[in-house]
Amino acid sequence: MIKIIVDTLGGDNSPNANIEGAVAALKENADLSITFVGDKDVIAAKLTELGCGTERTEIVHAPDEISCNDKPTEAIRKKTDSSLFRAIELLKSDGGYNAVVSSGSTGAIIAGEVLKLGRIKGVKRPALCPILPTMKRGIVALCDSGANADCDEIMLHQFAVMASLYMQKAFSVENPKVALLNVGTEEEKGDLLRKAAYKLISEDKSINFVGNMEARDFLKGDVDVVVADGFSGNVLCKSTEGACLEVLKLLKATLTKNVKTKMGALLLKKDLKGIKDFMDYNNYGGAVLLGCSKTVVKAHGSSKALSVKHCVEQAYNIEKNGLRDSIDEAVKVRVESTQEN
Amino acid sequence: MIKIIVDTLGGDNSPNANIEGAVAALKENADLSITFVGDKDVIAAKLTELGCGTERTEIVHAPDEISCNDKPTEAIRKKTDSSLFRAIELLKSDGGYNAVVSSGSTGAIIAGEVLKLGRIKGVKRPALCPILPTMKRGIVALCDSGANADCDEIMLHQFAVMASLYMQKAFSVENPKVALLNVGTEEEKGDLLRKAAYKLISEDKSINFVGNMEARDFLKGDVDVVVADGFSGNVLCKSTEGACLEVLKLLKATLTKNVKTKMGALLLKKDLKGIKDFMDYNNYGGAVLLGCSKTVVKAHGSSKALSVKHCVEQAYNIEKNGLRDSIDEAVKVRVESTQEN
Repeated sequence: MIKIIVDTLGGDNSPNANIEGAVAALKENADLSITFVGDKDVIAAKLTELGCGTERTEIVHAPDEISCNDKPTEAIRKKTDSSLFRAIELLKSDGGYNAVVSSGSTGAIIAGEVLKLGRIKGVKRPALCPILPTMKRGIVALCDSGANADCDEIMLHQFAVMASLYMQKAFSVENPKVALLNVGTEEEKGDLLRKAAYKLISEDKSINFVGNMEARDFLKGDVDVVVADGFSGNVLCKSTEGACLEVLKLLKATLTKNVKTKMGALLLKKDLKGIKDFMDYNNYGGAVLLGCSKTVVKAHGSSKALSVKHCVEQAYNIEKNGLRDSIDEAVKVRVESTQEN
Repeated sequence: MIKIIVDTLGGDNSPNANIEGAVAALKENADLSITFVGDKDVIAAKLTELGCGTERTEIVHAPDEISCNDKPTEAIRKKTDSSLFRAIELLKSDGGYNAVVSSGSTGAIIAGEVLKLGRIKGVKRPALCPILPTMKRGIVALCDSGANADCDEIMLHQFAVMASLYMQKAFSVENPKVALLNVGTEEEKGDLLRKAAYKLISEDKSINFVGNMEARDFLKGDVDVVVADGFSGNVLCKSTEGACLEVLKLLKATLTKNVKTKMGALLLKKDLKGIKDFMDYNNYGGAVLLGCSKTVVKAHGSSKALSVKHCVEQAYNIEKNGLRDSIDEAVKVRVESTQEN
């Protein structure tokens, strides 16, 4: 049985979307159990409404919520009645829980993972790894997207190792293509950090390294993993999101401009929805802090039920396929081989 | 008289677009003269065709072209019959020339500036500063967008000073709002470089510093200058361009999908062109390497006549309003005040 804890609070559509999404995942996976954390009465009522039995479910009462206005490190230590605090504590306990899924504050989730759960031995720093859609209708993982503003080449190498294993274990991508975010594609391009990281990653035969990638090719879908320091990874992630949203806004303004454009929009409605759907994070999974000793999947703050379902299944796959053990082994091998040299 | 040298080769639409654009600028500015560098017969024929007299024009024969396949540093030293080589040499000469406009290889142009023209005394490293359109139908300058992959806080401070002066002198922006690209908006955010740069820039009362800016807000048009190290600036610039292009590609595919969508597209045609125009670099100026001892404006490689015209006028404004002297003075004051402390 894979035991997943679902934080039912903290998202824009909580608790309903979180509960509905988790129940949907429960129905499709016979060896999955869900522990719902939040307001016990609300959860119980919703489960009854959904016709979900108590067989593979459990409810833990923690009705308080950590909001985006709370200071993350403080909230995760002091808000002891909050659903996220309790969820992390449960995962840390010896209750045999596998993972937490939460759509709450990213800062508080990362603080909880780093301060309470700790990292896998040998991992220098855990890295935040979201999944983005590509133009080839696939996905690409970006590692690190912002957990570590200051990085060295050993960290970038570890990000490549962890994210490569992650794509294999969580999304069944065979031999994931890994690229290094850089200012040009040639080997000698970039700053000192990129040059050192390129060397380390290209020498690691366990990684299917395809070389440097420019930011403009990020969404094309030619690679499965993009490795970056947390600063430029954050810039890449947010500028991509920002530019897509701004173009869509322009498009929307154009479509609603006058009677003629509204008629045109009507004819295109169904097909334009395809673009919107494609860019909707609800159709993809959440972000994971790779290298943590426990699995926590961060669903988008505006997650609907479908997104939560994807995140629960993502956590399920990660645990079922033993991602944490794989990272542990990979890091151990590297530490030993470094000591031999 | 402002004397501008126009490289007529090296762009996708050269030499016609370059000559036409320069002539258009010539017609609108009585104290502008243009020196065309390239194939003399081709240039002379085109000028006759355009009905352009010889009064404020000059032709320099240099029919060879530096292409994107040439190694920049080598080409700019050895291709002595190339239009770009000759244009840079002319600018360096004591012929009283003010600036070069070129749509040729960015690498070769930067190499020419750095190796042959040098920088303003006190400027640590020149920075590449392109102009991008914003959602408020204005423009934003990004400095540095890729000339310096490795930066320190003194460089970032100088980028802020130079780009702020640039927006004033080249585009008549009064008291330009300057932001620092960062992973969050709060003062304490970011890596060590950002923290140090934030301190320096915020203490400089000559800069209208509005604080940190996240990459997702880049196109919104709330600021006039975004300061970045060349690595993350390059990521920001290219990912923004890439994401916009990919969304437009999706849109195009949707519009041409079937008869119904094509009908819808027909109704929207004129208005959708507005989006395309908005994102067309031809409607904006070129990129400048700020901090160089001479002015060179790099037009986009696919520049049409309108873009070249804008670039010539950009160079004209930079020279007419004394940008180089302003940077020189600003840097001098700072060097002196640092020595006093």
